[in-house]
Amino acid sequence: MASSTELTHPEQGAIVLEDVLFALSDPVRLDLVRQLRDGPMKAASCTALDPSLPKSTRSHTLKVLREAGVIHNAPEGRNRRLSLRRDDLDARFPGLLDAVL
Amino acid sequence: MASSTELTHPEQGAIVLEDVLFALSDPVRLDLVRQLRDGPMKAASCTALDPSLPKSTRSHTLKVLREAGVIHNAPEGRNRRLSLRRDDLDARFPGLLDAVL
Repeated sequence: MASSTELTHPEQGAIVLEDVLFALSDPVRLDLVRQLRDGPMKAASCTALDPSLPKSTRSHTLKVLREAGVIHNAPEGRNRRLSLRRDDLDARFPGLLDAVL
Repeated sequence: MASSTELTHPEQGAIVLEDVLFALSDPVRLDLVRQLRDGPMKAASCTALDPSLPKSTRSHTLKVLREAGVIHNAPEGRNRRLSLRRDDLDARFPGLLDAVL
């Protein structure tokens, strides 16, 4: 996972409920989303991404959440900045995040 | 799937959020749950369980939803009676079903 890579994210209108539910259905992914509830974090600061996890697992966790439209993952220097797409999710599925987080 | 079988269901307090989200993350399962929104149905009447689907797929759909605590599946004569566990889910995760259905 090169830190400088710009990754693709679904537009708000393309976010699919089933994908969001699936993304949130894993304890590690749900933990990560809960850590982002109060604001963006550096990926390196995110304890949900336990450094003892295989790198492939951490990458996969971020990929599933990003592709579902749950988080935004942007390069920030040599790190990645993760943020919850709360506005997009609240617009698409009102009440869902509040019920889950 | 013998119609007369009494199946096990998790108690309200044992329903796990991640399992519920996973159960709802599949289009067929979500469709079935939406069909149960207005009341119980016979499994045979549930068009989400498309008869063209393999029987194993239909059984698996019902199993995932039942084991997650989303639906109740009870014998009713030679058929099965399916119902949404709305009270249990609303008690455990207020607002979740309203956001999803």
